[in-house]
Amino acid sequence: MDSVRVHSPATVSNVVCGFDCLGFALSEPFDEVVVRRIEEPAVRIIHLDDYGLPTEPEKNVAGVALFAMLDALKTSQGFEVEITKNIKPGSGIGSSSASSCGVVVAANHLLGGRFHRRELAEFAMEGEKLASGARHADNIAPCIYGGFTLVRSTDPLEIVSLDHPPLFAAIIHPQIEIKTSAARAILPADVPLAAAIKQWSNLGSMVAALQKGDTGLMCRSMEDVIVEPVRKSLIPKFDDLKSAAMEAGSIGCGISGSGPSVFAISNDLSNAQEVGEAMRRVYAVTGIDFNVYVSAIASQGVAVMAA
Amino acid sequence: MDSVRVHSPATVSNVVCGFDCLGFALSEPFDEVVVRRIEEPAVRIIHLDDYGLPTEPEKNVAGVALFAMLDALKTSQGFEVEITKNIKPGSGIGSSSASSCGVVVAANHLLGGRFHRRELAEFAMEGEKLASGARHADNIAPCIYGGFTLVRSTDPLEIVSLDHPPLFAAIIHPQIEIKTSAARAILPADVPLAAAIKQWSNLGSMVAALQKGDTGLMCRSMEDVIVEPVRKSLIPKFDDLKSAAMEAGSIGCGISGSGPSVFAISNDLSNAQEVGEAMRRVYAVTGIDFNVYVSAIASQGVAVMAA
Repeated sequence: MDSVRVHSPATVSNVVCGFDCLGFALSEPFDEVVVRRIEEPAVRIIHLDDYGLPTEPEKNVAGVALFAMLDALKTSQGFEVEITKNIKPGSGIGSSSASSCGVVVAANHLLGGRFHRRELAEFAMEGEKLASGARHADNIAPCIYGGFTLVRSTDPLEIVSLDHPPLFAAIIHPQIEIKTSAARAILPADVPLAAAIKQWSNLGSMVAALQKGDTGLMCRSMEDVIVEPVRKSLIPKFDDLKSAAMEAGSIGCGISGSGPSVFAISNDLSNAQEVGEAMRRVYAVTGIDFNVYVSAIASQGVAVMAA
Repeated sequence: MDSVRVHSPATVSNVVCGFDCLGFALSEPFDEVVVRRIEEPAVRIIHLDDYGLPTEPEKNVAGVALFAMLDALKTSQGFEVEITKNIKPGSGIGSSSASSCGVVVAANHLLGGRFHRRELAEFAMEGEKLASGARHADNIAPCIYGGFTLVRSTDPLEIVSLDHPPLFAAIIHPQIEIKTSAARAILPADVPLAAAIKQWSNLGSMVAALQKGDTGLMCRSMEDVIVEPVRKSLIPKFDDLKSAAMEAGSIGCGISGSGPSVFAISNDLSNAQEVGEAMRRVYAVTGIDFNVYVSAIASQGVAVMAA
């Protein structure tokens, strides 16, 4: 096999009480990534989208992820990578992660599955480092593993796949820019111990609720007393979005990644559609451009398609 | 039925990464509590042990727990309570909790099960308030529900029962006094956000590990970067106890409640016995009196015995 095509999904990280550790994968939107073996010992990146992302492989997240993999292989094998991004860069639903995870899963498939998922995640983290300056795995983990994931530790990397019931999500992406540096700078260096205890009690019960399929407990656990109170100021009408989502029957709602996207979880597809409509109505009067996505939470991460 | 006897177990709270929320019940030691209906509208407390605990019901944790229940019932029914404590007060393995949970479960049994477990826990929390000044449920939850419990919230009270594999514990109780006020005063008011994130990532994966029965993940998750580093100074040779337990094959080791007891979890009974011996050897040379307990982690909490 000389070529493979994968679908690499959007992901939500920082799931409310699970800041910096809890994430999930969506069925859509997804990027399409085709990887082909080539004769020369080189990496070529082609973007079939018009986001103007760099195509020098050293400056492209998929390129550096692939370099990390080739370094580990100590091979001079070359690859051509063709990326069609459907996940808009900077949207807060794991756009960079979709590129870097897609390419390493595809290349690994061509190489006969030489690497474990954890190793692939390590390679993809180099892409995150290029994109944001931090070697984090919050989006990488659900993008590669699918479903709900918990990153227990990044060094050494440990990713825990969580059982969960069938769930759906509505996402609204306001077309504004939030700089990762601004979203980081707004975080407090220290937090009250009492708030931290509340946060970890909620995260512990969120994990239990996912595994039990107890959506009532999930709803009560999806409370963030540390990050959301400060970051929501970066997202116009966040409180209105959240109220609208909850009134429309969502299980829980929060900031996706460091924003600007906002996600809301639902029990079934029709409720997710209603929640998406409710969020759309909040933004329709703002004059801010936005997209709404409604999707299943996908049990699979990057998917290898028939060639 | 006019009288009932229950066994009310010792419990471990503040399970390493689960400060103020994660606890478990032991099979032994346990207190024995007998509750009898009496003619007068009064509560009488009799202690068949020699710990010198107050027997005026307003000053006795079982008494105030029972008053809370009778208040909710709005009944003038009277009870006589006979308590044989085997769990030494001040040991850090839920002695007060065993008394207050035992009495409310027993009285509820006599009353035909009028109250849910959550309501019984609320009544028993009045005993904790008398004992420590705080209406906490860290030991109450596992004492009534059994197994591993997570207290998501105390107001309103929400207790989550966690699935877990068969597990065993060794406990060493150094016969020293740690005042709850001292153990509280030593805690920082604020903690670094990075440490809090590490703690909640560990707690999330601990809950997942319990439910998966993954003892390797449990072991890696049982790390406390916030409370243990400051409280261990209150327990002579804590680091040696923990090293000895881990070298003997324990899955994880920490301070029980606010000490002075130290617990270590094992896969099976024979390993728990080895771990108990290893901890005993550490203390044998200190000149400090101590007890060692080895027990299953009990899936049941307070147990109603044949009358």
